[in-house]
Amino acid sequence: MEFNGVILEDTYAEGFPVWAARVIITAVTKEWAYKAATEATGFATSTIGCPCEAGIERFVPASETPDNRPGYAVMFCCGKKALKEQVLERIAECVLTAPTTAVFNGKAGLEEIIPVKLHFFGDGYESKVVVGGINCWSIPIMGGDFIIEEEVGAIKGVAGGNFLIMGDSQMSALIAAQAAVDAISCVPGTITPFPGGVVSSGSKVGSNKYKFMGASTNEKFCPTIREKVPDTEIPEGVKAVYEIVIDGVSEAAVNEAMKAGVQAACRVPGVVKITAGNYGGNLGPFKFHLKDCI
Amino acid sequence: MEFNGVILEDTYAEGFPVWAARVIITAVTKEWAYKAATEATGFATSTIGCPCEAGIERFVPASETPDNRPGYAVMFCCGKKALKEQVLERIAECVLTAPTTAVFNGKAGLEEIIPVKLHFFGDGYESKVVVGGINCWSIPIMGGDFIIEEEVGAIKGVAGGNFLIMGDSQMSALIAAQAAVDAISCVPGTITPFPGGVVSSGSKVGSNKYKFMGASTNEKFCPTIREKVPDTEIPEGVKAVYEIVIDGVSEAAVNEAMKAGVQAACRVPGVVKITAGNYGGNLGPFKFHLKDCI
Amino acid sequence: MEFNGVILEDTYAEGFPVWAARVIITAVTKEWAYKAATEATGFATSTIGCPCEAGIERFVPASETPDNRPGYAVMFCCGKKALKEQVLERIAECVLTAPTTAVFNGKAGLEEIIPVKLHFFGDGYESKVVVGGINCWSIPIMGGDFIIEEEVGAIKGVAGGNFLIMGDSQMSALIAAQAAVDAISCVPGTITPFPGGVVSSGSKVGSNKYKFMGASTNEKFCPTIREKVPDTEIPEGVKAVYEIVIDGVSEAAVNEAMKAGVQAACRVPGVVKITAGNYGGNLGPFKFHLKDCI
Amino acid sequence: MEFNGVILEDTYAEGFPVWAARVIITAVTKEWAYKAATEATGFATSTIGCPCEAGIERFVPASETPDNRPGYAVMFCCGKKALKEQVLERIAECVLTAPTTAVFNGKAGLEEIIPVKLHFFGDGYESKVVVGGINCWSIPIMGGDFIIEEEVGAIKGVAGGNFLIMGDSQMSALIAAQAAVDAISCVPGTITPFPGGVVSSGSKVGSNKYKFMGASTNEKFCPTIREKVPDTEIPEGVKAVYEIVIDGVSEAAVNEAMKAGVQAACRVPGVVKITAGNYGGNLGPFKFHLKDCI
Repeated sequence: MEFNGVILEDTYAEGFPVWAARVIITAVTKEWAYKAATEATGFATSTIGCPCEAGIERFVPASETPDNRPGYAVMFCCGKKALKEQVLERIAECVLTAPTTAVFNGKAGLEEIIPVKLHFFGDGYESKVVVGGINCWSIPIMGGDFIIEEEVGAIKGVAGGNFLIMGDSQMSALIAAQAAVDAISCVPGTITPFPGGVVSSGSKVGSNKYKFMGASTNEKFCPTIREKVPDTEIPEGVKAVYEIVIDGVSEAAVNEAMKAGVQAACRVPGVVKITAGNYGGNLGPFKFHLKDCI
Repeated sequence: MEFNGVILEDTYAEGFPVWAARVIITAVTKEWAYKAATEATGFATSTIGCPCEAGIERFVPASETPDNRPGYAVMFCCGKKALKEQVLERIAECVLTAPTTAVFNGKAGLEEIIPVKLHFFGDGYESKVVVGGINCWSIPIMGGDFIIEEEVGAIKGVAGGNFLIMGDSQMSALIAAQAAVDAISCVPGTITPFPGGVVSSGSKVGSNKYKFMGASTNEKFCPTIREKVPDTEIPEGVKAVYEIVIDGVSEAAVNEAMKAGVQAACRVPGVVKITAGNYGGNLGPFKFHLKDCI
Repeated sequence: MEFNGVILEDTYAEGFPVWAARVIITAVTKEWAYKAATEATGFATSTIGCPCEAGIERFVPASETPDNRPGYAVMFCCGKKALKEQVLERIAECVLTAPTTAVFNGKAGLEEIIPVKLHFFGDGYESKVVVGGINCWSIPIMGGDFIIEEEVGAIKGVAGGNFLIMGDSQMSALIAAQAAVDAISCVPGTITPFPGGVVSSGSKVGSNKYKFMGASTNEKFCPTIREKVPDTEIPEGVKAVYEIVIDGVSEAAVNEAMKAGVQAACRVPGVVKITAGNYGGNLGPFKFHLKDCI
Repeated sequence: MEFNGVILEDTYAEGFPVWAARVIITAVTKEWAYKAATEATGFATSTIGCPCEAGIERFVPASETPDNRPGYAVMFCCGKKALKEQVLERIAECVLTAPTTAVFNGKAGLEEIIPVKLHFFGDGYESKVVVGGINCWSIPIMGGDFIIEEEVGAIKGVAGGNFLIMGDSQMSALIAAQAAVDAISCVPGTITPFPGGVVSSGSKVGSNKYKFMGASTNEKFCPTIREKVPDTEIPEGVKAVYEIVIDGVSEAAVNEAMKAGVQAACRVPGVVKITAGNYGGNLGPFKFHLKDCI
């Protein structure tokens, strides 16, 4: 199977359920909204070592936000209990503290409602206000009044969408990964939580040599040791592999992101093969077949 | 006391000890180093609710890094035990995973050495290499080989440097805060960990109304409720207050940052007063007097 | 007349006809398309002293471009003859030279077709290709093959849309201007050609004191000399005025941009008045009344 | 001759004299200074088709500027007469018009003084002021007062420093070019005027097929037609060539930039060869040998 001359392996990415919440952060300018969104979604690449997975979903123009100011939609993904904590902490520490911001429910879904009781921070000086037809709290702070819609909807979404880009040079694979992330950034309801959207160090569960390690490098996909690994998955001539990991609000959203990302990667010269990671169907119920991406 | 027509209150910022570590992150381009540095220092505004305080200290040109690639120095600040965990986790999850990166000891100090034993991730395929005269590990990963200097020096530094900018309009205070952050970003050994470097929501310990709250809005510094707070600290005509919080590797570094930041803020039209936060000397041993900033 | 507590003067902006062309610049990543678009639209604030007026209209996602790569739509505005020269020169010097770019007709209109005969640069090695159903030329260059659709449509559009933002501090007016530009950047078919979209130095025709000057500062709108100018237009308490100038493909597009920009500016605290510039209807046939902006 | 495994051809870049001026643009924040600097240096890749060559030389911290605000040093390069016009026009149209900016002499040299008589724009309301010990004019404008040092020093500098990066994939060459530009951006007194600092479409003088063309593609350096060009300079396996062009205030500055750029490019995986362009010594008196770059 090929697309634009690139081989697509006949395999699939295996996704699994994750709880997802979306928040709209607005500010006086696009730039200040971005700074808050970036801080709030940092240290959030993988739940293996980070408190949650998070990312900026998209820019939201002023014409579409409740307070008619520019904003960013951000998504947080992890287990149900951790999600409540993370949404609260990240708003409290990284958005409430950021100049001129306001926070609105991004309505990822209605399956759960996360109560973000930040109005108590107002110590009695807070008041109820209606902004854009929405019930909010107005909390006096040093910078002015912080507006927040305290109920944030969450939904059982999908984590673990993924594909791997193999390049004839490290830079072919890198730029293809960047192009894929650019494309996925235009797909609603999805994020690519790793740094710049790209994963450089795929892992396997456990370790053959160091039994105390819960995870270690996936040697089958490491080009520089191709000669030393008998069951290497690296085709001859491949110099680097970058993975794109996708979380989304639904199977359909991740599907669309997979499609946009795979096609974008295949348009970059020097990409030779696309594959995807799965656990034989044992990890999760969602299968994203690469053949459906073209 | 005035500087450029701005009143400086005769007071001081109260700093306290914090453990600080510095890491140099390099990558194939300045841009990719920046992406890794940003992810690694996110969700890190205040140890009140974040696992640590962190920020980008400065850009490091290729001519000054061990592997002669462009890089960023990032700093992490918190308690000693948490620091070890945070430096390890943030490198493992946000830098190892980022394309083309390498990690070097930023040598904040020699008081403590944090062992970042990431070479075990190599599952036996890792090897020792010397880069720029420095002993490192080379760990095969999907994107190539990840180079890391595994010992990161830490030092007992200073947290809580701060000053508050009062403006005749919200935007005067905001741009002054941005100008102050711009200036501090040129001072070695310091970071401003809040979003964009600025704090919008100063807090007091506890809450008068809600006894279950550990902290709540500092009503004395909230301009929009000035009329309702008898002991308000907001002068007439002040519309907003933004705070700059500074962490540094030493008292001298924070001193220099205070000076650069206060003077920069005072150069922005519309700033009417600068003050600083302290706890009467009960919190920490460092006093940064505003009068020493001019 | 007020909007969000801001006074809107009962006046109008006077627009006049201008020729406008739109070009889509794509590249391997969003970032490289942006670099080319920025270079191509620089030194293009006003036809008074620049060869044309130009700006980035909007980001175009890969799903909407002929070659399915990310791109930017840029617009060039000036007289008919100069437009042909400028479109050609700016593509030849700033886009053909930029890595991985391609150029497509942005179809501003069909009134004129600008023939961009860059295929001659191929010196006989060029060839015709079809990209996304469009007839293009493929020109071998050092970086690979440069793809260009050689016919660029132009239309008689509208220049000189404008409004002036008066602030109670310089920074109130500045951030309001930035917020206005953010909002206008979401309106199709329009650009704000000045630096960052903002004009700091409005001018009047001629000079009272220096007869050799074709234009000089518009003293009636200069806050710092308010006391010296008997017929000042600066209300008491206004510290700065920033102007937003808008070019568009049609009267309707400029109308929508005026509306989005004025409303965005009025939402920034500290803005006290909005007015607009006109020449009593002597300059151009288009009137954009501020009262229609709310 | 090799560096880091990359072949350096035993050749040289041929530089020629050019007039160069440097201007310091400051503003209330780094960001606004950058916007003005970007606009002022746009449409300025090559004097073949642009009015001048220009670029941002470096960020200048507040501690080093006359008005103690953050700034950018920009350089303009072209013939002596055009330089005077371009410095004047680009300041007048792109910096005077930009919010909160000031302009200072960047003192490229003392061989020529360009008089930028912008104070006439003040129509009599302008006044002399001393800023940071420097005689300036203060011109009332809508945004406040525009400060400008009206004498800008110019020097006979060097244009045409260059080297060509050949990659085993297009993206290897592209990222190597970006890394080279990153490195050169740290060398004082130099700029890389092309989009993002990179040239994708090298040209030869004249055209073999189209006699009316003054320049056309340099087919010897075009990888995609390697098979069709008997005297191709493209080694087998090379997929793309990107050129870095450098202008500087002196031979020494260009020398240092060549060195920094070549070494940076050679550190990017997939670069196979570096060469340079010259005209056999007929064009200019400066020879920058690649062998001196390592």
